[in-house]
Formats: sequence, C-alpha cells, structure tokens
Amino acid sequence: MSVWTDWWAQEHASREEAGLVRTLRPRGADDPTIDLAGNDYLGLARDPAVTRAAATAALQWGAGAGASRLVTGTLAVHEELEQTLARDLGQPAALVTSTGYHANLAVVAALADRGTRVVSDAHVHASLVDGVRLSRARLTIVPHGDVDAVACALRDAEHAGERALVLVESVYSVLGDAAPLVELAGLCERHGGLLVVDEAHGLGVHGPGLVARLGLAGLDHVVVTATLSKALGSQGGAVLGPAALREHLVNRGRAFVFDTGLAPASAAGALAALHEVRRRPDLAATVHRRVGELATALDVAAPAGAVLSVPMPSPHAAVAAQAAALDAGVRVGCFRPPSVPDGVSRLRVTASAGVADDDWSRALDVLVGVVGTFR
Amino acid sequence: MSVWTDWWAQEHASREEAGLVRTLRPRGADDPTIDLAGNDYLGLARDPAVTRAAATAALQWGAGAGASRLVTGTLAVHEELEQTLARDLGQPAALVTSTGYHANLAVVAALADRGTRVVSDAHVHASLVDGVRLSRARLTIVPHGDVDAVACALRDAEHAGERALVLVESVYSVLGDAAPLVELAGLCERHGGLLVVDEAHGLGVHGPGLVARLGLAGLDHVVVTATLSKALGSQGGAVLGPAALREHLVNRGRAFVFDTGLAPASAAGALAALHEVRRRPDLAATVHRRVGELATALDVAAPAGAVLSVPMPSPHAAVAAQAAALDAGVRVGCFRPPSVPDGVSRLRVTASAGVADDDWSRALDVLVGVVGTFR
Ligand SMILES: Cc1ncc(COP(=O)(O)O)c(C=O)c1O
Ligand SMILES: Cc1ncc(COP(=O)(O)O)c(C=O)c1O
Repeated sequence: MSVWTDWWAQEHASREEAGLVRTLRPRGADDPTIDLAGNDYLGLARDPAVTRAAATAALQWGAGAGASRLVTGTLAVHEELEQTLARDLGQPAALVTSTGYHANLAVVAALADRGTRVVSDAHVHASLVDGVRLSRARLTIVPHGDVDAVACALRDAEHAGERALVLVESVYSVLGDAAPLVELAGLCERHGGLLVVDEAHGLGVHGPGLVARLGLAGLDHVVVTATLSKALGSQGGAVLGPAALREHLVNRGRAFVFDTGLAPASAAGALAALHEVRRRPDLAATVHRRVGELATALDVAAPAGAVLSVPMPSPHAAVAAQAAALDAGVRVGCFRPPSVPDGVSRLRVTASAGVADDDWSRALDVLVGVVGTFR
Repeated sequence: MSVWTDWWAQEHASREEAGLVRTLRPRGADDPTIDLAGNDYLGLARDPAVTRAAATAALQWGAGAGASRLVTGTLAVHEELEQTLARDLGQPAALVTSTGYHANLAVVAALADRGTRVVSDAHVHASLVDGVRLSRARLTIVPHGDVDAVACALRDAEHAGERALVLVESVYSVLGDAAPLVELAGLCERHGGLLVVDEAHGLGVHGPGLVARLGLAGLDHVVVTATLSKALGSQGGAVLGPAALREHLVNRGRAFVFDTGLAPASAAGALAALHEVRRRPDLAATVHRRVGELATALDVAAPAGAVLSVPMPSPHAAVAAQAAALDAGVRVGCFRPPSVPDGVSRLRVTASAGVADDDWSRALDVLVGVVGTFR
C-alpha cells in the first residue's frame, strides 16, 4: 500500500460511513424507465430534427473540431450557432465553448483578478465557484437571494476602487427559485458592477431566458452564460454580452483558448434545438403546466424552472424514495451533500415536456405514493 | 463608458500595441486549404468509420447525454468507451469526461488539497495548471524536463509528510519533446509520489500512448489523462488508473460531478477511432515518417510527437510566415505569447496522416520556401 492507495481507501471508507457513496449506472438507449431525472427539459435531445442535424454535421464536418477555436477549430457551424444564439437571446455577441462549465470558468477567470471583487450568491453552480477560485479575486459570498447584501458589497467595492462582478443563476438548480434580476441589474448599473447571469436552467424553459424576458438583454452591465446541454439537448456552453467582452474572452479566456472547439454534431444539434425553441412555444408551456401539477400533487411550492425539489428528512430517506420510484418505473434525481448548498437532501423531479402524456400521469401517481411513504 | 467597458477597451489597446490580438477565422466544411494546423494527427476526425459511428450514436441516443453522469447521463456507450480505453491503454479503469480540460481539472483538484505538494513541469498544459490553482495545493514548478529537481521536491515532500503529485505530459505540446517517464515513475515509486501523465499528444501517435509503450501502464503510482479530441478526432477526455482513483473521481471530481455527460456522438466517435488506432498502425507510422521529413527539410530537431515547432525570430515574423503559407494554400499554427512557456514565437506544423500524399509534398515545398523567407 502506498500513501495514495491508503488515502483512497480512507476516503472511500468515510464516504461509506456517511452513506454518501455515489456510483454510475449506465442506461441503455431503449430504457423503458420514465426519465424525470435529467435536464432535457423540452425533450429536444431526442427530437428527430435535433438528432438529424447532429448526425448530418458529424458526417459533413467530422467527429471533432480538430483544434482550439483559435487555431483551425472554428467552423462555420460554430459561427452560425453564435450568431443565432446572440440573435435569439437579444445579445450583441456570443462565444461558444465546449461545455457550460468551460463558459463559466472562462468568463469569471478572464474578468476577475486580484483587483476585482466578486460578489457571489451562496447557491451558484460549482463552475462559477471554480471560476472564482481560478481568478484569485476577493470573494464576498452573499446569502441566497439577498439583494441588500449585494448592494452593500457593491458599494464597498466601489469605495475601494475595485471592479466588481456579481454572480447569480437566473433559475437556481437546487431550489428552483429565480434570482431578483431586475433589482440586481439596477444595482450593477448604479455601482459600476457587472452582473453575470447563468441561464443554465432558464434558457428554453423561459424561451430566450429570463434575462431577455425581463428586458435586460443587450445591456452593457449584464452578461449571460448558458449551457447547450440542458433545454437545448446537446453539449456545450456559451457566453453572451458585449462584443468587447467576446473579444476579451477570445484572447484571455484560458478555458476557451486552450481547449478544442465544440464537436460539430453538438454545435449543429444545439442550433437545431434553438430553432425548435423559437418554433414551438408549446414545449415550454407543457413544462410549466406539468411542474405546477407536480407541485400541487406533492404539496411543495412551484419552482420558477422545470425542476421540482422535494425536501426529504435524510440522505437515506431520499435514496430510499428514489429507489422505490425506480422500482415503479420512474427515474428521479436525488440531491445529497455535498451537492446541496444547505445540507438538506432532496428528490429532484424534472417536469420534462419530452415525456408522453400517459407516462406523465403514471409518473405523477408513482411519485405521490413514494413521497407519501418516505417523507 | 462604465468601469468594465473602459477596462475592455484598455486591455484591447494593450494587446494591439503588443501585436498579440487573436481573432477567430471560421472555415468551411470543404475548405481546400491543406490543414497542418490542427491536432487530428491520424486523420480520424473525418474517417468514414468514425463519422458514421458518431452520426449513428446521435440518432440512437440523442444529441446530448441529458444530465450529469451521476444522475441519468451515463449511457452504455460511455461504459463501453471506458472499458475499451482501459483495455487498450493497459489500465485497470477509465473515467470519461466531457473534455480533456475537464479530465485534468477533475483529477488534480480531486487529488490535491492544502496538504499536498504538487510538483509540476514548467511546460504543462493550462488545464493542469488550472487544476492546481483549484486545489490550493503547495506548488513546486520545476524546470522543464529536470528529473533532479523533481527528485528534490519529492524528497522534501516526503520529509514534510505531504502527499505528492507529479504533473507532466508524455509528449509536450509546444516543444514536442517527451518526458523522462521511466525515471519519473521510478522516483514516484521510491518516494510515494503519484505521477500524472497527460497523454494528449502521445495517445494514437504512439499507439496506446507512451505510458503503455514504456511498460508503465497499470502501476499504482502512475495515472494517465487523455483527450479524445486530438488523435481520436472527437471530443472529450479521460482519466485512467487504479479503480480506487476512478471511484474517488466519481465522488469528488467537481469537473466530473457537476457537468453534463459527454455527448453520445462524441463518445461513439472516439470509440470507433480507438478501433482504428488498433487496426491501422500504418497511420502512426505515416506521422512519424512525415514529421521526420519535415524536420530534415526545415533543419529542426525531430520531435517525439506529430507536431514540429519551428522557432521564429519574433511574433511578427511568425504571423507573417503563417500568412504567407496560408496564401500558398497551407494552414499552419503559430505559437505566440502567452501560449508559449519560454516567450519564443513558433510556427507549429502538424505532420498529420490525414493529408493526401501529393498535398503533403506540396505543403513541404511551401513550408521550406516560407520558413526560408521569414526565419
Ligand atoms: C447552473 C449550471 N451552470 C453550469 C452548468 C454546467 O453546464 P455543462 O453541463 O454544460 O458543463 C450546470 C450543469 O451542468 C448548471 O446546473
Ligand atoms: C496537453 C494538453 N492537455 C489537455 C488539453 C485539453 O484537451 P481538450 O481540448 O480535449 O479539452 C490539451 C489541448 O487542448 C493539451 O494540449
């Protein structure tokens, strides 16, 4: 046994003791389980228009982009995707990255440095947190949704002569609540801050996203990041905002510069999905109707996005409820520490528009039963 | 003008002054330029077996994995890819990530913490550097290729009771030289260190990679990271090593846990490419023959990998030579600060097996002329 194999064994043992061991369970392409665990909110990942576009792009362009976007890895399909994203989201410019994680790393680490104050909501995603760590900026974590705390931090940064960045999600992943974007944008305008809004769970579910819906798109002090891997059913990410920001990231965004361009199939899939989002507003309407039904049935407040979080009394209860649902043919997610900001374990149920109507009714019945048993 | 728009303008102006502005130039699917700039070393990105596998997977599985690998985003195609990677590279276990960058972030940040000493070669890739920054480990950067310096740092860490991680690339990106892997693995074994070898530029070009070729695969103290986006012509990354390491990353690798699974088309494309690597050793042989020809013709030492670096007297000379080659129908890369570890600008020429024989001869003539003019 070496120092390292010892350490892995110890770490494994303490996870076991805490009941927090995670394992991967591969699924098949024709798995009959009703899937309410994923982030394919609109059912576009398997939409024929989307998969055909992805397949055609692989045949036409190749399986990979072949190099960094800065070398020879920028393809016409990337450019078309960027122009379409910018147009649909009402932004001057867009830059596509190979994951949403890369988008957040690139934008935060390229904008913030030791002379910057980053004001971050306590519930933002790991990729934004990692971006801050890479930047070495001074970090102020504010309580979740606390506008006054953001205001204080921004005033403080202004007095100290620091550039300030505010990090939020439009719709939060775990609790499913929306950020007070209008107030935050107003604060950033008054105090010279830059608001970075991660639309991972807003885009598609709210058409062009909450930033656009609230009339905040195209402002110099509001930047958007997005992932192509949730409502757009593909893979990749994007940063949207002023053209000068895009140019800055092309030159200084390490997670953009030193990374192979997004695979053509993924870019083309996301492009086709954007088209479906524009063409079929009924998809988002289905999501909102379903998530409302589910919230009522489970007696939980309705979220702003497609995902309902159902608090459970313990990690073990959450895991047991998840297993019972799966036995009954319904896959739901489960949030446990360390993936929750507040230590509360939850079932995570996605009201996807991709599920057939009768499957949805069946799933609703199963979940009412299971949650009743374990809560 | 706000604080931020001001800052972007200033940053842009100083890049302009230094002659270091980068821009993106999209290429078409049927661009007639001979491409010696990318990392599609074996020409597999557009190989029909590879693109067909990618297209079929998009149609069968959907355009995206739909969720984190830990939730419902692990597909049978991921598992098959992991098992094939592990088998072909001679490793007990593999974990696939959505980019090579993610693989490096995940492994370094999950293994190293404040109690760890990271000993890093000065030339390692940005993604390994970022992994170290995320980890907050104590970092010792050793001069490029300096085995004695690694030995000293490891002894030091051992005496201090710190776990130690050594970071290298099997074949370095910029200079194209190989790391002294046998010596480094020996040092790690003696001093309880863990050697992390990034095979981004070794895999495929050296069959299963240099770690496997040198008989170092499967050792408890040697871990491999790889990208699926270079010789395998696709997108994605992987970490390979002991099963206990894989289990650790599934639980603690933030860039794995909090990220959507690799797109099915990319996973299937890489899987088909691995098959071609096994089946057609002639592809790697072509690369080595061509890179030797090129090195002789340009009077530069032959590299260990597929890429020849040609030092140029200035960033401007490198850019001018690159432009002249492009005018003559040959695309080559260009390394300038801040993408070079030593400040020396270089042309970067890939001896890809994917280029037709007559194109290769023509490219050779063009490069001899252009380098003669600008060097
Ligand atoms: C809020 C948020 N931001 C960013 C990401 C990362 O996106 P991607 O999976 O495309 O890397 C995720 C989830 O994966 C997310 O939930
Ligand atoms: C040495 C090295 N490691 C890692 C990476 C990252 O791989 P990927 O492009 O798949 O993110 C690259 C290049 O992109 C590289 O050159």
